[in-house]
Amino acid sequence: MRTLAELGEREAIEIIKSALESTSEAYPPLGDDVSGWRLGGGLLAILKADMLVASTDVPPGMSLYQAARKAVVTNISDLAAKGARPLAILASLGLPRDLTEQDLLEMARGLNDGAREYGAYVIGGDTNECQELVIACYAFGICREGELVPRSGARPGDVLAVTGEFGLTYLGLKALIDGLALSPGLRERALEAVLMPKARLRVGLALARSGLVTASVDSSDGLAWSLVELSRASKVGFVLEELPIRPDVAEEAMRLGLSPEEACLYGGEEYELVLTVRPGRLEEAMSIARSVGVELWPIGRAVKEQGIWLRKEDGSLKPVEARGWEHFRQ
Amino acid sequence: MRTLAELGEREAIEIIKSALESTSEAYPPLGDDVSGWRLGGGLLAILKADMLVASTDVPPGMSLYQAARKAVVTNISDLAAKGARPLAILASLGLPRDLTEQDLLEMARGLNDGAREYGAYVIGGDTNECQELVIACYAFGICREGELVPRSGARPGDVLAVTGEFGLTYLGLKALIDGLALSPGLRERALEAVLMPKARLRVGLALARSGLVTASVDSSDGLAWSLVELSRASKVGFVLEELPIRPDVAEEAMRLGLSPEEACLYGGEEYELVLTVRPGRLEEAMSIARSVGVELWPIGRAVKEQGIWLRKEDGSLKPVEARGWEHFRQ
Repeated sequence: MRTLAELGEREAIEIIKSALESTSEAYPPLGDDVSGWRLGGGLLAILKADMLVASTDVPPGMSLYQAARKAVVTNISDLAAKGARPLAILASLGLPRDLTEQDLLEMARGLNDGAREYGAYVIGGDTNECQELVIACYAFGICREGELVPRSGARPGDVLAVTGEFGLTYLGLKALIDGLALSPGLRERALEAVLMPKARLRVGLALARSGLVTASVDSSDGLAWSLVELSRASKVGFVLEELPIRPDVAEEAMRLGLSPEEACLYGGEEYELVLTVRPGRLEEAMSIARSVGVELWPIGRAVKEQGIWLRKEDGSLKPVEARGWEHFRQ
Repeated sequence: MRTLAELGEREAIEIIKSALESTSEAYPPLGDDVSGWRLGGGLLAILKADMLVASTDVPPGMSLYQAARKAVVTNISDLAAKGARPLAILASLGLPRDLTEQDLLEMARGLNDGAREYGAYVIGGDTNECQELVIACYAFGICREGELVPRSGARPGDVLAVTGEFGLTYLGLKALIDGLALSPGLRERALEAVLMPKARLRVGLALARSGLVTASVDSSDGLAWSLVELSRASKVGFVLEELPIRPDVAEEAMRLGLSPEEACLYGGEEYELVLTVRPGRLEEAMSIARSVGVELWPIGRAVKEQGIWLRKEDGSLKPVEARGWEHFRQ
């Protein structure tokens, strides 16, 4: 009998899904970034559960305040990717009994601030004793069904774009976990990216309302894996014409003997949106994103053949390996 | 600086609440059995988070199927107490990596069955690696605000009633944890009560719709503590005229040298509703409960002076100790 360590997270999820009865009241289907329930009148109640576990999700150097805030923000990021406004957060806490009063207060402030940054409130939850710290947050929001951006809507010819740079959290995590010495100028930005992640809510909402975006996912498991997810759900492939990594981040990676491509494609813990825009509508989408302070970065296009490729300098296409963060396997 | 072991769960919750900003969109307020969000038109989205942790919530002898089912049912029980219909369940799983394929499938079936028993569906969740098994379920439902039964509505003179017997889980837990040898006839019933708890959903919904119930809580932390919760929220006291324990359970407790009173008041892990009925409306409420197969058991009344008392055989009143299950303290 195979164990989780052998199965990996993605196969484990398939096993669990096989035992669940489905209903047409639920939309989008299991496997998208969020779950939803049809309320009637074209409205969806949006529900999201994402658990933070100290031993796998909290790097050294992250405070309890930051961990609790992150536990909220990762949930909100999934709503952002779908164009759903978060309203309320619940937090189920699994707490080791040696935590102090001050620890609790720090965590509660992190939960509150994570929600308030995005206009939501923490309105409930529960506390439990647990051998390790677990912060299981749940987000509730509302969305018009017609505005929800699924993973499955990309079509060949759509423009592939991201809401920001990649690679920075890869360096930040290397600095926190392996003690890698980053350049002073970059170190602060890289640590900030890891310790205080931001959900792309405003741009997610604005783009969803515009109707210009055909598919979207948040990039928490890395850019490459986000593309795999969009590709599988939409049954399209992607050709990356460029990597969304900034020159100073790429140079820093090289200086440290690391691959900029690896940093950009497989970093993870980024909360940028990876999305597709209807052909010929990129300028409009960029202008909407700019109106809420975000520079959309076009990086390629959707193609008919399933798979992910990166355009090399000589013009040839190189397959991008389909891997990303996966629990039980790391 | 005090640790959680010194603070106890209830003080920990007060510390967390002190850091959370509140909003008038949320109802009922923090501290009731569920949270809710005003959707407009008199409708509330009902949200509930209740985490099951293996080391504290899963007694020996409980299978993974039963643990997963229980993790769903405890959430539904809270909705039942408020008169809210559960629609959807999300499950965040923290899984040790030595769990097998078969374990996963058992758990998924438990989640599914726990939801389907009450008309709800498991529509999402996530999986994570964790040092111990954590099943954090999240229930979503809908309720008319005017029909939600809060903890705070009991008034002096209201009749106090419960939806079933107490004391059985006390014996069942003693059998599972301490190996206590129960009589063959009772053993099966007691283990069933612990391993396959039922949420009182149908009767909770029917009574909430009737408008006859002024306050309600589910009794997961024991009958005595449920009364403390109703008492504090409603600012009333309670006089218990009798204990809702069946003669065979009381006799079994005595045979084993245990106190029937202790078994009835402090067992916990029961999911009966403890509620108050408007004066003079008990017969009506009983008839509504009977129509969905439940025998309402009147056990006392609400009084003006805050506190909990039990009527002794000589007619005098004995204070009931305000204690119940509390994390970090056990």
